[in-house]
Amino acid sequence: MADATFIHREIVKATQENLRSDEDRLAVEEPLEIRLGRSPVAITMRTPAHDAELAAGFLLTEGIIRKAQDIVRINGPDRRLPNVIALKLRAGIRFNRDRLNRYFHATSSCGLCGKTTLEAIRVKTGAVTSDLKIAPGLLYVLPGKLREEQETFDETGGLHAAALFDGDGKLLYVREDVGRHNAVDKVIGAALLQRRFPLDRHILLVSGRASFEIMQKALVARIPIVAAVSAPSSLAVALAREFKMTLVGFLRGESANIYAGAARIGA
Amino acid sequence: MADATFIHREIVKATQENLRSDEDRLAVEEPLEIRLGRSPVAITMRTPAHDAELAAGFLLTEGIIRKAQDIVRINGPDRRLPNVIALKLRAGIRFNRDRLNRYFHATSSCGLCGKTTLEAIRVKTGAVTSDLKIAPGLLYVLPGKLREEQETFDETGGLHAAALFDGDGKLLYVREDVGRHNAVDKVIGAALLQRRFPLDRHILLVSGRASFEIMQKALVARIPIVAAVSAPSSLAVALAREFKMTLVGFLRGESANIYAGAARIGA
Repeated sequence: MADATFIHREIVKATQENLRSDEDRLAVEEPLEIRLGRSPVAITMRTPAHDAELAAGFLLTEGIIRKAQDIVRINGPDRRLPNVIALKLRAGIRFNRDRLNRYFHATSSCGLCGKTTLEAIRVKTGAVTSDLKIAPGLLYVLPGKLREEQETFDETGGLHAAALFDGDGKLLYVREDVGRHNAVDKVIGAALLQRRFPLDRHILLVSGRASFEIMQKALVARIPIVAAVSAPSSLAVALAREFKMTLVGFLRGESANIYAGAARIGA
Repeated sequence: MADATFIHREIVKATQENLRSDEDRLAVEEPLEIRLGRSPVAITMRTPAHDAELAAGFLLTEGIIRKAQDIVRINGPDRRLPNVIALKLRAGIRFNRDRLNRYFHATSSCGLCGKTTLEAIRVKTGAVTSDLKIAPGLLYVLPGKLREEQETFDETGGLHAAALFDGDGKLLYVREDVGRHNAVDKVIGAALLQRRFPLDRHILLVSGRASFEIMQKALVARIPIVAAVSAPSSLAVALAREFKMTLVGFLRGESANIYAGAARIGA
């Protein structure tokens, strides 16, 4: 990879016996500023690699753009500004800066709760419609495929990974990042920039937990099946059920928990 | 605990043999809106419990307040608005909404990078000064103490935990949350509201990774030693070195990696 996803640092290793000098590999975390034209719209702490995909995926999953053609040009990062990326969007694309963030666009006058949060989303999008159906056996092999392609994790233990598969379980993209939301934005952005959309017959796999934020990004990208190696949150499950998505958790070995949309998993 | 940190949901369990109905426990994730007076300043996705501590810790670690006395009153959450908390601050406390977020307050005119990010912080705060020194053996027992008090994790696998210890390794607070930054804000907020400040002879332990954001919160709270069960990021280590903090990672069994400030760990 061209970008440094890990660096070496001298450390002190403490064991039962003694303290001694050692060396360790660290996952790189650096801020990325995403600009529309000259105007900064977000700073995210990310692992420097695939920044164009990260920015494109972020703009899509945050609802600012809807298709690859909405992006006219991507500049940077470059040597002078290694952590700044600037995008030029198609004329006529407006965005509301106040809505663009993970401090989510709920109205503050209602008894803010998960339920109203879901209702706020429903105004903007409908259920995911996809007749994709996969066998449990296809699910079980996905984490192994991700790990085979995941280079840095074993080196640092410090990165989250996301992978996008087609409906036959073929691995399309694996991306790693210190932020799990960034890893998801990167695989979605990769698919967007390489014109693989729509993703309505695809599967998203994340190496850790499935939060509301992850599910919301998958929803906006219209991905019908999301699988996580670890646990989902209550609101992730509620979102999946509300929008007819399939949510699989604890995908380990030859077992998994299906929290929503079990009709898509069958023999 | 009064608040629901987990809920039960019917699921489908997929195994090598079959698909069958089952039940699972899920970590609760709900938005919390933090208001100053009537004005919303942040929404964070959190596990509902210890919301006053979360709000107080958030305001401190984001640099809006400096001491417990800056908070005049905390109202909510209540039955009518279960996910809204409103704080009244001492007269004269100003805050800059644009700076208040995790899209961090870096200036956008410089070649934004980890280095400039650290320089931006240095303008506002100095190195952590503390002559606390602990034995490696004291470190090794901290994760066990956290796990003993961590009720929900074993039930759901879906929560991060943070714990605050004094310099003798005595556990003061454990808090759990779907967001690891929230778990940290909760233990710091607990210490703040119970007038345990300053924390310059204390140890913060997190159940997962140590990111820049976690270190920044510990720095603002002036905590000299941060330990993580898993990996730190490059920028977490850079921040610890810059501000003379001790950062321990991979604290497992009777070994640990000391990434910064090793002088505080000794026999």
